[in-house]
Amino acid sequence: MRILLTNDDGIMAPGIQKLAEKIARIAEVVMVAPHEERSATGHGITIWDPIRLKEMTFPGVLKAYSISGTPADCVKLAVQELVKEKFDLVISGINNGPNLGTDVLYSGTVSAAIEGAVLGIPSIAVSVASDDYTEYDTAAEIALLVTERIFKNRSSLPPDTLLNVNVPAVEKGHIIGFRITRLGVREYENVFDRRIDPRGNVYYWLKGSVKPHSHGESEIDIVAVENNYVSITPLHFDLTDHRIVKQIWDSGFEDMKI
Amino acid sequence: MRILLTNDDGIMAPGIQKLAEKIARIAEVVMVAPHEERSATGHGITIWDPIRLKEMTFPGVLKAYSISGTPADCVKLAVQELVKEKFDLVISGINNGPNLGTDVLYSGTVSAAIEGAVLGIPSIAVSVASDDYTEYDTAAEIALLVTERIFKNRSSLPPDTLLNVNVPAVEKGHIIGFRITRLGVREYENVFDRRIDPRGNVYYWLKGSVKPHSHGESEIDIVAVENNYVSITPLHFDLTDHRIVKQIWDSGFEDMKI
Repeated sequence: MRILLTNDDGIMAPGIQKLAEKIARIAEVVMVAPHEERSATGHGITIWDPIRLKEMTFPGVLKAYSISGTPADCVKLAVQELVKEKFDLVISGINNGPNLGTDVLYSGTVSAAIEGAVLGIPSIAVSVASDDYTEYDTAAEIALLVTERIFKNRSSLPPDTLLNVNVPAVEKGHIIGFRITRLGVREYENVFDRRIDPRGNVYYWLKGSVKPHSHGESEIDIVAVENNYVSITPLHFDLTDHRIVKQIWDSGFEDMKI
Repeated sequence: MRILLTNDDGIMAPGIQKLAEKIARIAEVVMVAPHEERSATGHGITIWDPIRLKEMTFPGVLKAYSISGTPADCVKLAVQELVKEKFDLVISGINNGPNLGTDVLYSGTVSAAIEGAVLGIPSIAVSVASDDYTEYDTAAEIALLVTERIFKNRSSLPPDTLLNVNVPAVEKGHIIGFRITRLGVREYENVFDRRIDPRGNVYYWLKGSVKPHSHGESEIDIVAVENNYVSITPLHFDLTDHRIVKQIWDSGFEDMKI
């Protein structure tokens, strides 16, 4: 089995290194990750600059490349250029911080896994649900468990889908179990911090604190993680809102005259 | 009525300027757009750099700001910081080039409209379906038509949805009409161009030519535009694949033991 690892925290980040260590036990591991942190790049790709790469070596890793592009570039370049053999799985992570609810739209980690699915490869994104938690061993073990489960039963992950896995930032003994979830909504307050620079110019920092989540349904990813469950959300990349195609149709858009 | 215009081609791009000219006939127009082209940034946001802005003036436009951020930043900053009154609509575009099929994942134009919908504002993305077509008058007229239709019947665009509009790059007289569509798949071949720089280092350009589309169904956005219809696709931002939540559940993921 051949597994591609990538992330948005950069190739030297402890999350991907710990992941490689565990996954190398069961598969040939190829790493293609950004030179440095590329968080919040969403599904950006590099079209105006060349993409440079540097070959690296890590214990147990078959091939490793650090590249100047985004997480989505990493997956594209690995699959379509650097490695001729087909990958059986893409794992993106382990991200330093949660990728929950609507925030997955901004996530480089999740976008890399989406790119894997777009290219027809089963994919998972794995995140530890706190920015200031530095223990990746449990999350890496969980990534390994999920990987083994996917390989045991390939039909559990249909084509064009991926799994978004968020691991609570607590010690292993405090994790209660797994929950299959749907994405919640992450709302922010005090979103921008307005400042004046020494030359009198206004600038803004995007900050924003997450509003407390009022809904208690345990099938929502945010709630599951708050309650110390590992959240697994199946995602797809078809943004068509099929529910309302007919409704839009009936609103008379098609009868408009130019 | 108050309408926010944004884009990913930069505030001076002819597409947004033509759009402002038309939309100012029926609404108060606020423009917040990037200093320069930010294509293919996906849903990236700026978290490691400050966002700077420059106030500008354009005929018929109430307020205009050029900012150093991404298209998604433009919408966030406009809605949550720069303008206290609520917007009735966000229009992103008119983009120079198609935003069809799976390519919407990479699109700054579409991501800005998604951000509008995330923030609870009806939103549309408008693109002219060729990079080398420089006539925006027809597309701007179509954006105006769609806007008027939304305001005439607000229920035609439910909350949490947006419309992705692609206008064929042909003269007005050759446009046959409107089609409500779903996103197709845009597949590429010869994706990367490998080169060697004068110092002997390898680098890659992302290029890729679109594979001819084999499916003929006219309800697919790509096909509709090829056949000279304006394609209108309703999009949402819930990436949860609700179809397979149960299937994943049944695969035994929840019974895994850590």
